[in-house]
Amino acid sequence: MTYCAALNLKDGLVFASDSRTNAGVDHIATFRKMHLFQQPGERAIVLLNSGNLATTQSVVSLLRARTLHDGEHLLNISSLYDAARLVGETVREVVDRDTGQQASNIDFGCSFLVGGQIRGEQPRLFNVYPQGNFIESSTDTPFFQIGESKYGKPILDRVIRYETDMNEALKCLLISFDSTIRSNLSVGLPMETLRYRIDSFAELRPHRIDEGDEYFQQLRGRWASGLRQVFASLPDPEWFDEA
Amino acid sequence: MTYCAALNLKDGLVFASDSRTNAGVDHIATFRKMHLFQQPGERAIVLLNSGNLATTQSVVSLLRARTLHDGEHLLNISSLYDAARLVGETVREVVDRDTGQQASNIDFGCSFLVGGQIRGEQPRLFNVYPQGNFIESSTDTPFFQIGESKYGKPILDRVIRYETDMNEALKCLLISFDSTIRSNLSVGLPMETLRYRIDSFAELRPHRIDEGDEYFQQLRGRWASGLRQVFASLPDPEWFDEA
Repeated sequence: MTYCAALNLKDGLVFASDSRTNAGVDHIATFRKMHLFQQPGERAIVLLNSGNLATTQSVVSLLRARTLHDGEHLLNISSLYDAARLVGETVREVVDRDTGQQASNIDFGCSFLVGGQIRGEQPRLFNVYPQGNFIESSTDTPFFQIGESKYGKPILDRVIRYETDMNEALKCLLISFDSTIRSNLSVGLPMETLRYRIDSFAELRPHRIDEGDEYFQQLRGRWASGLRQVFASLPDPEWFDEA
Repeated sequence: MTYCAALNLKDGLVFASDSRTNAGVDHIATFRKMHLFQQPGERAIVLLNSGNLATTQSVVSLLRARTLHDGEHLLNISSLYDAARLVGETVREVVDRDTGQQASNIDFGCSFLVGGQIRGEQPRLFNVYPQGNFIESSTDTPFFQIGESKYGKPILDRVIRYETDMNEALKCLLISFDSTIRSNLSVGLPMETLRYRIDSFAELRPHRIDEGDEYFQQLRGRWASGLRQVFASLPDPEWFDEA
């Protein structure tokens, strides 16, 4: 599995992805799940993926190769909506190709989060389903998760609002990943994080966090001890005495 | 869905279950998931269930009806291991009966947590799978969850150890349920909690918590504000400035 999350907030976009892939428990490998398509000053598009590794790699390879040729591609489309549509079409293309005529129990499906900003638009964020259709985030629902998303959802539900500061949001994502990594073997470090500030059109620079990352270790430790303190301060109810 | 969890700790057993069942989103109902089989002074057996409601109700009805007749039943077996085996056999019996000869897409499966103490044994806790086989908790793995378990797992992973005090453990379960209820519509109040102190063989008295429960409201509020405080106290890394 994989865990990826992306947020579209008042001040910009925040992304995070892990890098673990597994086929069963004995074929575990490290692959990046974050892919950038950008022209600084003009457009910044970030793709996060989960699901079948062969499918997602093919989708990204095709999207990347096509930017070198004529026709519609991620570096010439004029809206993020079109970017999401293009990703969805490419997912369908690869799944159809790889499934072929054979009936199979293998799940070729994958999901993509597509976020970014193209000059002339506000930042936008889309969740592209395995079927190739997609939904867009909103001020009410400012974040999407794909992959092994349940473990890390409660802390996002508690903390993330459209108005949340980007740095707070990134810290929250790190905590969400920490919770997921602790509870599920199939999600693992290194992870990558990325922030994009609205209207900056700056060069995208992912930040990689591995096991040795001092800040992440500190954050994990502070969060764990902070939780224990909150926990210890919670009141007992009267009915605790009855047992 | 459903969410149930049970803990087998140094001082005794702790149980919690929600009461929401749903078939799709438009047929939501309230059913208890906690079932007691007890003879104060002699045995205390608690069943928690998740999965197909028809199957679980039939399993519990049969287990209950059979205590009134001769033959092996939950009020005369001599170990918790036999209780788990009996539950597993009854699950298989009902699933086989209801599945019949017809191939069907309906999932008749269900899971049970079976915990308690029978005089002559230590308290024990089993997780009975839909196939009727089962595993037992240990000092390394002192808790089991069934149903919609992922949302509430991180906090249990962080807090629960075999040595954890029963009241702390119950508070942790309440937080785990709060997180799940916030993140997933298919889990809902009222919930039931139960503690059983080792060697007490006291009458089991579940405690019901509904929306109006003052203590649970207070706990949810204190936990949410405590988390926000811990969150606000987390340090920013230097690389937060680069975006």
